[in-house]
Amino acid sequence: MLIQYSKILENCVNEVAKLPGIGKRSALRIVLDLVKKDAGELTLLTDAIQKLHEELKICSVCYNLSDEAICSICADPKRDQTTICVVQDIRDVIAIENTQQYRGVYHVLGGVISPMDGIGPQQIRVQELVNRVSESKPVEVLLALPATPEGDTTNYYIYKSIKDWVSKITTLARGVGINEELEYTDPVTLSRSLLTRTDIEQTFIK
Amino acid sequence: MLIQYSKILENCVNEVAKLPGIGKRSALRIVLDLVKKDAGELTLLTDAIQKLHEELKICSVCYNLSDEAICSICADPKRDQTTICVVQDIRDVIAIENTQQYRGVYHVLGGVISPMDGIGPQQIRVQELVNRVSESKPVEVLLALPATPEGDTTNYYIYKSIKDWVSKITTLARGVGINEELEYTDPVTLSRSLLTRTDIEQTFIK
Repeated sequence: MLIQYSKILENCVNEVAKLPGIGKRSALRIVLDLVKKDAGELTLLTDAIQKLHEELKICSVCYNLSDEAICSICADPKRDQTTICVVQDIRDVIAIENTQQYRGVYHVLGGVISPMDGIGPQQIRVQELVNRVSESKPVEVLLALPATPEGDTTNYYIYKSIKDWVSKITTLARGVGINEELEYTDPVTLSRSLLTRTDIEQTFIK
Repeated sequence: MLIQYSKILENCVNEVAKLPGIGKRSALRIVLDLVKKDAGELTLLTDAIQKLHEELKICSVCYNLSDEAICSICADPKRDQTTICVVQDIRDVIAIENTQQYRGVYHVLGGVISPMDGIGPQQIRVQELVNRVSESKPVEVLLALPATPEGDTTNYYIYKSIKDWVSKITTLARGVGINEELEYTDPVTLSRSLLTRTDIEQTFIK
């Protein structure tokens, strides 16, 4: 892409093209759209980006992104502080919040154990979870990690590390997705859902 | 998308999602990527965006975007100032520059005549082109407008407006695209390319 005739334009296209999932062509489209906007609109965007660095914090309790030292989920008296949901990253907090089905609090690990990638328990926030659980003794810890070998390894490691302080350690149900045809379900998931079959009365919406 | 627990995050996602071609999910991905960057990298991006408003100008000769009052194409003594290529918008300047086959200068109309959209000759820079052509009397004006009815109408209107000052008025060749199978060429293009068939010697690369 030759935009040599304007360094300002070219530089902005290059910066925008560094964003994930944005190629040079989309970057140009975005920049030409920005050019048409007035100063106020551009400032709204650049201020919002700058605030990510200047004002966004990491919650000292659950390690979620937060506007305050303690995030609004941890600080919410209506949320059940005795149930801790352990997730890989912030994206998962957002996904679970979107279901509006969970009223407990979170613990963001920042990854899962993956020896292939050089990530051991020390590289993620397992010790922080152990400290939190041993101090607060929650009723339940829900391990909502990815359904991958790395997720399973992490589940087992965490289970061993916290089982002395909490009696109820659960994990997300694995099985056939809602609206999924059995014909297209992968055989591993299907076998697992056969082995962990559920009493039909539990599936009736009350 | 519920990111109610952080207004800073939610606000930035909303601002990024206003960009063309970016949905809420991509916006979140971009913002979480920005969160990981350091202050310097964020400033590079926000400065580049702010400069679009603060420093980017419109060239007073050709109406292209420019870093200076006169753009580097119009100011380049190596470019042929006697050939003016008329284009719809800046995107087309970039597309033609990318071919590296054109050494003349440009005139950016800012649109094409489209009565359906309420765009007449007064809404685009036709008068500015007439003034420029009548003063500078170029050797050639190349009309590189879209091959649509609106482009054709604009071609004809410009042709009538400038024909007294310039003898050579050309338009981009219309025909079968390079590497295109005739079987898939639309019939209008194919008929046109039959009517305006070219001496084969012209197609040999010299």
